[in-house]
Amino acid sequence: MRIAVLGTGPVGRTLAARFAAVGHQVVIDTRDVAATLAQTGPDAWGDSPFPVWLDEHPDLELHDFTNAAAAAELIVNATNGAASLSALAQAGAGNLAGKVLVDVSNPLDFSGGMPPTLFTKETDSLGEQIQRAFPAAKVVKTLNTMTAAVQADPGQLAGGDHTVFVSGDDPGAKAVVTDLLTSLGHTDVIDLGDITTARGVEMYLPLWLRVWGALGTPIFNIKVVR
Amino acid sequence: MRIAVLGTGPVGRTLAARFAAVGHQVVIDTRDVAATLAQTGPDAWGDSPFPVWLDEHPDLELHDFTNAAAAAELIVNATNGAASLSALAQAGAGNLAGKVLVDVSNPLDFSGGMPPTLFTKETDSLGEQIQRAFPAAKVVKTLNTMTAAVQADPGQLAGGDHTVFVSGDDPGAKAVVTDLLTSLGHTDVIDLGDITTARGVEMYLPLWLRVWGALGTPIFNIKVVR
Repeated sequence: MRIAVLGTGPVGRTLAARFAAVGHQVVIDTRDVAATLAQTGPDAWGDSPFPVWLDEHPDLELHDFTNAAAAAELIVNATNGAASLSALAQAGAGNLAGKVLVDVSNPLDFSGGMPPTLFTKETDSLGEQIQRAFPAAKVVKTLNTMTAAVQADPGQLAGGDHTVFVSGDDPGAKAVVTDLLTSLGHTDVIDLGDITTARGVEMYLPLWLRVWGALGTPIFNIKVVR
Repeated sequence: MRIAVLGTGPVGRTLAARFAAVGHQVVIDTRDVAATLAQTGPDAWGDSPFPVWLDEHPDLELHDFTNAAAAAELIVNATNGAASLSALAQAGAGNLAGKVLVDVSNPLDFSGGMPPTLFTKETDSLGEQIQRAFPAAKVVKTLNTMTAAVQADPGQLAGGDHTVFVSGDDPGAKAVVTDLLTSLGHTDVIDLGDITTARGVEMYLPLWLRVWGALGTPIFNIKVVR
């Protein structure tokens, strides 16, 4: 599948590399290609500068949001939640129309310090905001309940015996995403229902953050035992 | 241990019966004993009238909140979240002082219909409200992340191989509660930290409600796989 991953942070990098490793044609995308390729210091997360990382991943190309979305069959929003709507606007509503748009972002607001709060919750979700802004896209919320390394390679943790959720209005799009998740090694995909159920997985983040604090590592996930 | 369980709804009934079954001296408590004993129809959850249930549990006594709290070593708040502060006020701050107060309630607001919303979240939690209102009590938030039947008898589900959280400011109280949870069959207790971490477990409820919807049963729980 031709996949465009929007976002060059840890989530975008990790997912893009993994999608390529399991055989997809992947483009990683940024707002301003020249600016991203001019980075010389570590990024905001302390990771290596993007050009260094890109050199280490010769199977990946860097494009801007618009070109990448136009060429892709499936688009992954791995941008910062606060920037997601503007990034997707730059990708272009026409380029998203009719396509599966996988939203893995979280509506985190760091303005008040740690732990972050949610800039939308309970009566709305970032997944719904994206679906409303791009009504012709088939938005599927998923993967936001775990750290990037576990999203991309769930088999590293208990052989993949833990749960990932999907939320979205289009059953066909959820089936495509379920196949994609399975290709990464996810073994337990729970379909929560329509895109409003994104409120549930986004509001899980405050618990996720505190479990991270208690365990001292983000390499964990939940299994729905039933 | 002498345990007072505040609340005669499904959670209070289920926990009280189970505490007694594993060997504790248990009193189940209500605001108005005469009114509770006068119930003749099914309760709000469709369960049998309280007097019928009580007849089936001859090892349990019914007391009012005040007398029960005075005699107990450990108190469990299993009242409706919206009524918890007033129920505990009736139990009496003096009767709660120095004791472990296990809070299993959730700040659910049903006024807008289903699914319920949370009447406090993110910048506060019901667990913290209770701790602030009764500063001499040792509040431990726990068990609110699963349905009553699983709270009380976790072994019925995957042999108990799933997770329960504790949040509270007093390490000794959390140790007492961890022992109590273990006596019920819980095998994986994660200490999230101080009482502010109750925000995490309370904000999990919107996801819990949607997983219930997706599975069609509340008999599930999450395991933190790490």
